[in-house]
Amino acid sequence: MGLALPTERHYPMHTYRIDLDKKVNLDDFDPAETRYAPGGKENAEQSLLQLNRQLEALQESLYAEHKHRVLVVLQGMDTSGKDGVIRRVFEGVNPQGVRVASFKVPTPVELDHDYLWRVHQQTPARGEIVIFNRSHYEDVLVVRVHSLVPEAVWKKRYEQINAFERLLTDEGTTILKFFLHIDPQEQKERLLERLEKPEKNWKFNAGDLKERALWKEYMKAYEDVLEKTSTPWAPWYVVPANKKWYRDLVISTLLVETLQNLEIRLPAPFSAQEIAEFRRQLSQEDRSG
Amino acid sequence: MGLALPTERHYPMHTYRIDLDKKVNLDDFDPAETRYAPGGKENAEQSLLQLNRQLEALQESLYAEHKHRVLVVLQGMDTSGKDGVIRRVFEGVNPQGVRVASFKVPTPVELDHDYLWRVHQQTPARGEIVIFNRSHYEDVLVVRVHSLVPEAVWKKRYEQINAFERLLTDEGTTILKFFLHIDPQEQKERLLERLEKPEKNWKFNAGDLKERALWKEYMKAYEDVLEKTSTPWAPWYVVPANKKWYRDLVISTLLVETLQNLEIRLPAPFSAQEIAEFRRQLSQEDRSG
Repeated sequence: MGLALPTERHYPMHTYRIDLDKKVNLDDFDPAETRYAPGGKENAEQSLLQLNRQLEALQESLYAEHKHRVLVVLQGMDTSGKDGVIRRVFEGVNPQGVRVASFKVPTPVELDHDYLWRVHQQTPARGEIVIFNRSHYEDVLVVRVHSLVPEAVWKKRYEQINAFERLLTDEGTTILKFFLHIDPQEQKERLLERLEKPEKNWKFNAGDLKERALWKEYMKAYEDVLEKTSTPWAPWYVVPANKKWYRDLVISTLLVETLQNLEIRLPAPFSAQEIAEFRRQLSQEDRSG
Repeated sequence: MGLALPTERHYPMHTYRIDLDKKVNLDDFDPAETRYAPGGKENAEQSLLQLNRQLEALQESLYAEHKHRVLVVLQGMDTSGKDGVIRRVFEGVNPQGVRVASFKVPTPVELDHDYLWRVHQQTPARGEIVIFNRSHYEDVLVVRVHSLVPEAVWKKRYEQINAFERLLTDEGTTILKFFLHIDPQEQKERLLERLEKPEKNWKFNAGDLKERALWKEYMKAYEDVLEKTSTPWAPWYVVPANKKWYRDLVISTLLVETLQNLEIRLPAPFSAQEIAEFRRQLSQEDRSG
């Protein structure tokens, strides 16, 4: 594995990682499970706070080092919590150095290009963490489910995407991909909540009901995505996301562990000589001014 | 005034606003004063916490309404606290909907265009807050101080900038510009601190000493900026920034007051009829599925 992560005992959350070409059946994944948080929600809140502080510190080092690039891909059905992850996992992390790219329905100009054109423009720069709220994977999800391009076209995309992500990682980008896994019952409750609270109505989109009706088709498309594009260099994680706190715990843990693995080093400090010289310049100026 | 702000009694921080064509002498502005925080730092921490929560809520509404655009311009000498403002004032505000654009030394491609070309690309979209960490004002600051273009060229830029910012505001952008005002003694202390702490060395740039030697020239250039480009539609505020907590208090207050003045409204909630219809669709599907 590209990330060279050791045993489950040390990094249990990494069992949510999908291995390339492993047959994936989403029915085998329980969206409601919370197996690595035996202490439940209350204990998790503590861990989350701690992970958030670690993430804050790691992001600052990453920014200072100005070497690595980090790309976080968030995918999932409507209401699965993509916005919530951005809000909670990245709470308090310096907005300078963290950027969110949301991929909506492509514009006419974007459609005049290949589907990776607009995506490539949004990839992270050195020292930067970029979160994709939806991504190029929509081009093998919504595009497939609604037959927006012929099957012969979207079928080629898995390999194209793997090659694209390979390029990014070869050039110094670390990629983490999270599928936020909820079940239709959970979505129904969340949609009803959006209807019940007038101040949440704006989040409810009548179109969501149409997509919801295609749940099975979407799960099939997601299974193919997970099976065909979870590579050693850009792994997919299936995140149990019925419980929001557990979803955040899993993602925070994986993020922190991955950043720690990068062995980020701050730029070398100055030598005593250099510091003395700078000090001399600063005090000399007082005498001349 | 475009913002139609009433008396100093109600909005005291607005006295830091510069009026167009008012003669500006930065010696008249005390970078160390804290006049609107009689309770000192401890009381200010409380206010800051409260302002931060208000900002968080206002940003969420702004994002939901998807109507206004907000541009915050941060300018100031090295170590004046631009990064600190981004970190502290915007702490906890949802990174989705807040974006930082840092303007560094222009690339060859950027230099092949006019100086506002790269800036225009970074202006906020509907519902978005964008923070400029340095900005097009460098094109009448560093560019002027180092004579990177002839005087005849940079002299025209004040009017060009006013026209550009007028366009942005006419089209729905609210602009706030903050000059973080510190004195050379404060800068010296901050530079020394960066030298003393090895983990802060990376923030120290030998080039900063050269810019520091040009302090008077920079102040002259800033005075012209403040005098010529503080318009009713895009006002400049001179923020006393020797005290970090006071700097953050002034900026948070001005931001919150300005956003409150926008009278942001969430999109209208659904009617009872619409809600009933959505509910019907959600329950019907259970019977068919």
